[in-house]
Amino acid sequence: MTTRISAAELTALSNAALTRHGLSEADAETTTRILVDADMMGLPTHGVVRLDPYTARLQNGAADPDARPELDKRAPSLALVDGKDATGPVVAQLALDAAFEMTAETGIAYVGCRTSNHCGALAPYGLQACEKGYIMLGGTGASPTMPPFGGTGAVIGNNPLCMAAPCPEAPHFLLDMAMSVVARGKIRKAIAEGTSIPEGWAVDKDGKPTTDPVAANEGFLIAVGGHKGSGLSMAVDILSDLICGATFLTGIASWTDDITAKQGLGHFFLLIDPARLIGRDAYDARMGEFQSIIRGTPPADPARPVLMPGELEQTAMAAAQRDGIEINDELLAEVRTLAGA
Amino acid sequence: MTTRISAAELTALSNAALTRHGLSEADAETTTRILVDADMMGLPTHGVVRLDPYTARLQNGAADPDARPELDKRAPSLALVDGKDATGPVVAQLALDAAFEMTAETGIAYVGCRTSNHCGALAPYGLQACEKGYIMLGGTGASPTMPPFGGTGAVIGNNPLCMAAPCPEAPHFLLDMAMSVVARGKIRKAIAEGTSIPEGWAVDKDGKPTTDPVAANEGFLIAVGGHKGSGLSMAVDILSDLICGATFLTGIASWTDDITAKQGLGHFFLLIDPARLIGRDAYDARMGEFQSIIRGTPPADPARPVLMPGELEQTAMAAAQRDGIEINDELLAEVRTLAGA
Repeated sequence: MTTRISAAELTALSNAALTRHGLSEADAETTTRILVDADMMGLPTHGVVRLDPYTARLQNGAADPDARPELDKRAPSLALVDGKDATGPVVAQLALDAAFEMTAETGIAYVGCRTSNHCGALAPYGLQACEKGYIMLGGTGASPTMPPFGGTGAVIGNNPLCMAAPCPEAPHFLLDMAMSVVARGKIRKAIAEGTSIPEGWAVDKDGKPTTDPVAANEGFLIAVGGHKGSGLSMAVDILSDLICGATFLTGIASWTDDITAKQGLGHFFLLIDPARLIGRDAYDARMGEFQSIIRGTPPADPARPVLMPGELEQTAMAAAQRDGIEINDELLAEVRTLAGA
Repeated sequence: MTTRISAAELTALSNAALTRHGLSEADAETTTRILVDADMMGLPTHGVVRLDPYTARLQNGAADPDARPELDKRAPSLALVDGKDATGPVVAQLALDAAFEMTAETGIAYVGCRTSNHCGALAPYGLQACEKGYIMLGGTGASPTMPPFGGTGAVIGNNPLCMAAPCPEAPHFLLDMAMSVVARGKIRKAIAEGTSIPEGWAVDKDGKPTTDPVAANEGFLIAVGGHKGSGLSMAVDILSDLICGATFLTGIASWTDDITAKQGLGHFFLLIDPARLIGRDAYDARMGEFQSIIRGTPPADPARPVLMPGELEQTAMAAAQRDGIEINDELLAEVRTLAGA
């Protein structure tokens, strides 16, 4: 069963849950925005369902509610943030805000984070960049769950990459992709339904391709496009973690296996102001044309028009703003409990 | 039949072919390096086989042998290059060299190109960045050959993305990936051999998934990972073309259909100096560890160790430097003819 709740009400509950576990009002609001945005975008796996692990980690010393992340400006367009084990969105938002300021000055900025925690979905950050008129590449490290191409063993993470580019009219270009072919939930669904899985989703524990969901569940998800996604996961790890002083590859502890272990996670944001290259008007005209060409592509199924990356999420967000967010009753009860409501 | 030829000899032939078609010695050397590097890396589709179309385009007015590309520095870390329809590697190398200079100053640079032509494989540019100690993201536009996810019709290109990161000892991290699942050659091979193709390689002319290579050949290759590769192709198009003032999406003319048509192509290079973030020693130590973890992953097949992205290409290059390049006899005859040798 589900209940429809307004964004304002869910925001208030999330803020209460986070301040009740030690976050300042400001840090709670920052974190809540990232989580509630994800729920509004139809990305419930990255929404307020994360309040439980976030608060558990605050209670168990894996995240520090009093941490004050520090910005280390290395050059006019380069900075690092030492997250000091703060809650992830607090660290990531500080980095993104610093990147906004630097980009306003210089037209480009890279800001990387270390000593952070799970920062939520990347799309809400990308949407902020679009609203500022900037192009964003963003990424985050994640604990290792996949083998590198040709290997066996959990060595690389499902490290998501986000690319955002503002469009003069909604929807913005907003690609937010993890590197596995599918999420693990699809393997569990196939087990429950007794069906096989397509080739190319997973390998067994010995690294051999399998269509048996049970063997896949004991084995590993694989990266999209074989060596391509495997290499992209590593590329995101280098940009998010390795050059920021964060943990990387097998150095990243699982955030669910041990809620007392600090993750030392990294993220990055890279912004470019296209107006500084070709002017705002030219950019807007070209991006409007880009959007028209993509959305005007004849669809393979006439009932399903071709969409811009992130269009579904932005449509869902507008609907949620208007009609509220549909939330699972058990989850809502959990959030109320965490909030002491 | 193939012949083994030294890199020096192939370089001399390529230089002769290009100067014979109007390029200056310097522009010929720049172009040759990119092509011969690709042959040495075992990427013959991007090697001297391109001399024929490159020179045909120079002869037919689609590329201008006398063009002097212009660098427009927009900010200390941002620049655009107007290629003036020069041969692609001449434009791209000017952009990369400018990016090297800017990165030495500021630690980061984005340089985009417009009014360019096919610039060869990206891996040779990435290798140069590694030799300078810089991390590189690079990309290039390409004429549309794939439908966007869910669409039918050639709207997005197979736009390659390259990520390079220097390692203290070879091989460097050197990912160079196009966005289609497979190259079209694999479809033609299946037709020739009368076999079917796996699901997920291609769609027919109506955009429906197909395992029939004939229907696939009349249809379209598809992007790796469905909506993910489709979105990545668009992301590369935005970074390479849209924000540089280059042609994009369906605006890019095929470079083979009409060798008299100017392409107005775009490319980009984005460099970061990791030493400016965490220091050279820390970076080298971390990247060395990264390389050890990846290459030390237990392989699924004991005979095939896990490789770093680009390891095969760098191993091939070292072997070619030592033993020469194995080149198809017909191609070698063609190169000799173009060179007037």
